[in-house]
Amino acid sequence: MASVYTVIMAGGSGTRFWPLSRKARPKQFLPLAGDGTTALLTATARRVESLSPLSHTLVVTREDLADATREALPGLPEENLLLEPVGRNTAPCVAWATHTVLRRDPEAVLVVLAADAFIEDEGAFVGALQTAARAASRGSVVTLGIQPTRPETGYGYLHAGEVVLPGDPSVRRVRAFVEKPDGPRAEAFFRGGEHLWNAGIFVYRADVMRAAVGRYLPDLAQAMTEIDSAAREGPAEGARAVGRLYGGLPNVSIDVGVMERLEDVLVVPVSCGWSDVGSWQAAWELAPRDPEGNAVKPSGAPAVLVEARGNMVVAPEGKVVALLGVDDLVVVDTPDALLVMPRARAQELKKIIDALNTRKDRAL
Amino acid sequence: MASVYTVIMAGGSGTRFWPLSRKARPKQFLPLAGDGTTALLTATARRVESLSPLSHTLVVTREDLADATREALPGLPEENLLLEPVGRNTAPCVAWATHTVLRRDPEAVLVVLAADAFIEDEGAFVGALQTAARAASRGSVVTLGIQPTRPETGYGYLHAGEVVLPGDPSVRRVRAFVEKPDGPRAEAFFRGGEHLWNAGIFVYRADVMRAAVGRYLPDLAQAMTEIDSAAREGPAEGARAVGRLYGGLPNVSIDVGVMERLEDVLVVPVSCGWSDVGSWQAAWELAPRDPEGNAVKPSGAPAVLVEARGNMVVAPEGKVVALLGVDDLVVVDTPDALLVMPRARAQELKKIIDALNTRKDRAL
Repeated sequence: MASVYTVIMAGGSGTRFWPLSRKARPKQFLPLAGDGTTALLTATARRVESLSPLSHTLVVTREDLADATREALPGLPEENLLLEPVGRNTAPCVAWATHTVLRRDPEAVLVVLAADAFIEDEGAFVGALQTAARAASRGSVVTLGIQPTRPETGYGYLHAGEVVLPGDPSVRRVRAFVEKPDGPRAEAFFRGGEHLWNAGIFVYRADVMRAAVGRYLPDLAQAMTEIDSAAREGPAEGARAVGRLYGGLPNVSIDVGVMERLEDVLVVPVSCGWSDVGSWQAAWELAPRDPEGNAVKPSGAPAVLVEARGNMVVAPEGKVVALLGVDDLVVVDTPDALLVMPRARAQELKKIIDALNTRKDRAL
Repeated sequence: MASVYTVIMAGGSGTRFWPLSRKARPKQFLPLAGDGTTALLTATARRVESLSPLSHTLVVTREDLADATREALPGLPEENLLLEPVGRNTAPCVAWATHTVLRRDPEAVLVVLAADAFIEDEGAFVGALQTAARAASRGSVVTLGIQPTRPETGYGYLHAGEVVLPGDPSVRRVRAFVEKPDGPRAEAFFRGGEHLWNAGIFVYRADVMRAAVGRYLPDLAQAMTEIDSAAREGPAEGARAVGRLYGGLPNVSIDVGVMERLEDVLVVPVSCGWSDVGSWQAAWELAPRDPEGNAVKPSGAPAVLVEARGNMVVAPEGKVVALLGVDDLVVVDTPDALLVMPRARAQELKKIIDALNTRKDRAL
């Protein structure tokens, strides 16, 4: 089988876990899940190591996050670190990574995923990626479809169609990409059993994606050809071309720009305890909790919890956090900023970020 | 009229305003009321300055609080700072201060009060003290009785009797000292109009108190005579005697040990917006608040309050405190400890203190 390369998209903005996450330290660098000490980015790379070692892993991120990324992935070859000179949506990122891999290995299969998700059942996840890679090597673009565990309105969905090989339910056709549904529709999806969460995880042969970008986003393809030519002269020339061209690339997502227009998209359904760790609420759900439902990070921190239930507490090492008679709060303390809000309103954190943005607060 | 000396009792333990107050920085050193920048102790001394300047003000406190006290009252003569070698209840403190003043001025009238109360109407308060001092100079022990503004169960009461001078309601006899009442009794007191809050503010002639201590607490009086003799030899000798004797003095309050046994106690009723600033709830009541009822200290701190009402927020200078969708909380942040609890449960802070005591936490 062809070599598998993994592309980790790691350019988060760092607002959903404020004040722990910051512009300079977005979510992928936080130890938000699992053992509580490993950054999500590090865990993401480790998770797919059996499929593609670090030599075959590319990370696309913002230039200002280069050092943090090197720290999270000390074994990552420098040429596998793709630094976007300006933030763009995912289509330029995917195209750039695809062309970078193509120059090394024209036969490669690529797995594209986000740096900041959590996976409970890593075996099931990697198994699904292997299935997807096999299907992709035959020329299809393949997505992973997460079996819903609740009628979630916060995700897009994949409407799964017929199986590709009779008797083998592991790969199906994608009938449609579905936008985030409202409550009743999400309920119907959940009951119907034909809809899967779109986790933004794609597997494809590099040459297939190159062709698809050429068809649907010809400007992007043209720029990639220019970057290819420059990169063949040397890394410095390649970097200069990226610096010159990247800001002009179409600011479109790979979903909208390419995936939803393709006719031949397959999906591998999987149940693997996936979470996009999208809010403090999600972090609480994933964290180890005491019998009263309190999650305290770092674990073993000197918290004093009296008649307090269901709280998510994060504080600097050694700080005493005392909660008395409060339930279901998020309490996140850092040296220069403190957040207190109900867990149930975690999705509204943006209101705080907006207020901080308005006054250009340095605590962002 | 005789000279008035003020004795400020300033030996608080610093638990009711944890984590802002600490053993080493109890409540009297916190800027909890009024302008938000003046320590309660400093405000207490200033308030009575027209009655007794700092030269006539004595402060009794714990040895380990000497430097903090000097800082709060830079003009206090060193010989007016009485440092208790061990914590005792108020009877030894009052007796010691009384004898110290007697050695300087046998005719003196003393005003004894706590360092850590808040007074809204200082004119009314000082006027009442002047009335009390006049009555005391005739030989009575006089207390201030605060006109209740609610059926409070947290204070002791004074049952006021007949007026002393016909037609002058400003001084009455005390019929009885009444322990903290339960709810229904407090309601009855509040409706009845004959009961006043006992704020622990006493005014008396020094020789009268010396005689009263001699009658009701002869062991204490004996020790004071020994300290007097030593102190007449010199300050070092006096301090040595205090160090030797203080730990053996009866650990009793002046109320129980002397006041409640006296037959001739008068009371001056006063409405002056007195608060003992006994909890974070009281501090919130006294603090300036925004239209949503939030009190933020220091004022002008960079708090972000979104759909948040009635909260008491205290944080270090410059720290961003963000509250979203929480009401009526106490949120107090310090560099090494953070407290979150409902305002309505402020009286239960002791549960946190007990937990910290149990583990001998250094954040106490």
